[in-house]
Amino acid sequence: MAGPDPAVAAVRSAVRPGLTGPVLVACSGGADSLALAAAVAFEAPRAGVPAGAVTVDHGLQPGSAERAATTAGLLRDLGLDPVLVRRVRVGTAGGPEAAAREARYAALSAAAGEHGARVALGHTRDDQAETVLLGLGRGSGPRSIAGMAGSRPPWWRPLLGLPRASTRAACTALGLPVWDDPHNTDPAFTRVRLRTEVLPLLEDVLGGGVAAALARTADLLREDTEALDELAAAVADPTDCAALAPLPAALRRRVLRRWLLEAGTGDLAAVHLHAVDALVVGWRGQGRVDLPGGGGVVRASGRLALQGPRADPSAPPSEEPHP
Amino acid sequence: MAGPDPAVAAVRSAVRPGLTGPVLVACSGGADSLALAAAVAFEAPRAGVPAGAVTVDHGLQPGSAERAATTAGLLRDLGLDPVLVRRVRVGTAGGPEAAAREARYAALSAAAGEHGARVALGHTRDDQAETVLLGLGRGSGPRSIAGMAGSRPPWWRPLLGLPRASTRAACTALGLPVWDDPHNTDPAFTRVRLRTEVLPLLEDVLGGGVAAALARTADLLREDTEALDELAAAVADPTDCAALAPLPAALRRRVLRRWLLEAGTGDLAAVHLHAVDALVVGWRGQGRVDLPGGGGVVRASGRLALQGPRADPSAPPSEEPHP
Repeated sequence: MAGPDPAVAAVRSAVRPGLTGPVLVACSGGADSLALAAAVAFEAPRAGVPAGAVTVDHGLQPGSAERAATTAGLLRDLGLDPVLVRRVRVGTAGGPEAAAREARYAALSAAAGEHGARVALGHTRDDQAETVLLGLGRGSGPRSIAGMAGSRPPWWRPLLGLPRASTRAACTALGLPVWDDPHNTDPAFTRVRLRTEVLPLLEDVLGGGVAAALARTADLLREDTEALDELAAAVADPTDCAALAPLPAALRRRVLRRWLLEAGTGDLAAVHLHAVDALVVGWRGQGRVDLPGGGGVVRASGRLALQGPRADPSAPPSEEPHP
Repeated sequence: MAGPDPAVAAVRSAVRPGLTGPVLVACSGGADSLALAAAVAFEAPRAGVPAGAVTVDHGLQPGSAERAATTAGLLRDLGLDPVLVRRVRVGTAGGPEAAAREARYAALSAAAGEHGARVALGHTRDDQAETVLLGLGRGSGPRSIAGMAGSRPPWWRPLLGLPRASTRAACTALGLPVWDDPHNTDPAFTRVRLRTEVLPLLEDVLGGGVAAALARTADLLREDTEALDELAAAVADPTDCAALAPLPAALRRRVLRRWLLEAGTGDLAAVHLHAVDALVVGWRGQGRVDLPGGGGVVRASGRLALQGPRADPSAPPSEEPHP
């Protein structure tokens, strides 16, 4: 007996190790999520775990309800159960891509909660490479280029190690009718231009293997970022200047950022964090550091303290400089 | 009295804070290093620090000796002293760009040592962006995309925050004759294609500010990398499995990598590091992990131990699995 097509086998191998509990495959009907759905449908019964699917109707294009119903039929034919169709209302905040994404993830997350399941997402290595490039353009640091995590409940992305070509080939081998979302080729979307213009040029200039290199870099960055986050969370007292001062700068600023965010301060820019950090390591008696939202931080008796808005008369005076 | 041209002022401001000791400006005669040389020549006497220059003759193009002599004359006219011309012999290892770079840095480093000076390099924010993209293509992780450090003795790169346009404008404003190295526009060089093709396309697709974003990302990555390196160096006993196991993965692997490199093992690939790490956190009685160069690591009595080549009869036996 001949084994399955190599691409089908590759997608199945990618999902197998993670099938440890109930799962819902998020499926748009596109090649990535359809190949994922087929692989999960094949492997889940063998692993003894329940596997269903969710398809989201964004209601943005004419015929989207029929499109979702067709996909749902296909998913049922694969043997997935339950197969849910979730209609969402897409807002406008942050642009069309971001708004659709937000609505979709909210619906998927709700479905996961209702069914006590993880949600399997069909992102491939190529999606990861595009995500890293998008993050690079933002310039907000390691976190923004660390890409997507393979497993961060309720999300599960078993295909991050596979090229997009594999999911397309798997669908062809299985005779599955792939739906090509017209958004995926519309150059009005930044991600589409990264995929169709930037990545091919980078491949040409850097000599190939760029998507794999970007995905590998994302993995390593995520590990570094998680390690520093973990170490920051372990610092017992984030307000004790003597304990903070000897820490490496990147760790110290993470401790401070964490403390301020947990205390409910709003959007912290690098400039705020550096000013608070200077209270710890550049102490020359400076006054209160104002934060977005009206609060502030002062140093008093070798400790950092949060204050309310400036007019607050209960605010302690700033500490005198060291002699 | 009118102040200097804004670009001239920007270059001078960039060098001023770092002029704390003797410096030699590495100058090719190109816009970046010439603007740097002019700024250092202007600021160094005001800061009371000695400032000279070095120009390297790579001997790769006809007339390179004359080219170097012309640049040296220009540097003397700026008031820099001493002005050194170093002729190097460029090998072939690693390709023409890498070989020229290696020969140049060796000559500059030697000059720094002889004169007890740092070497100022004219790399701009655009060079930093190209370096990050080159590192991304390698895919070897955060270290490879962390770019160039602003200060890592003997190297000093005061212009990393300035766009290349500023150095060109400063030279024009000062009437300095810029030499345009034909290599800087030769598309046979990867860096040239990143500069002339990839970065402009990324700017277009991502909406501008990409060079600045890449440079900012590099800064943040370097801080993270340095923090983890510092924390890894502070681990007292890198062979004590019980002490290593609770550390975050990225930190633990850095501790192991550092220990193995200090013990003289050769090129460590990720696969080796993961296998040694598995002796710590995935212990099931596995045997020796072979390393490049013939050595190996075993776990014995809860500690990691280095062994020589496999035939070594003094090698201790591997620890039994935990019951």
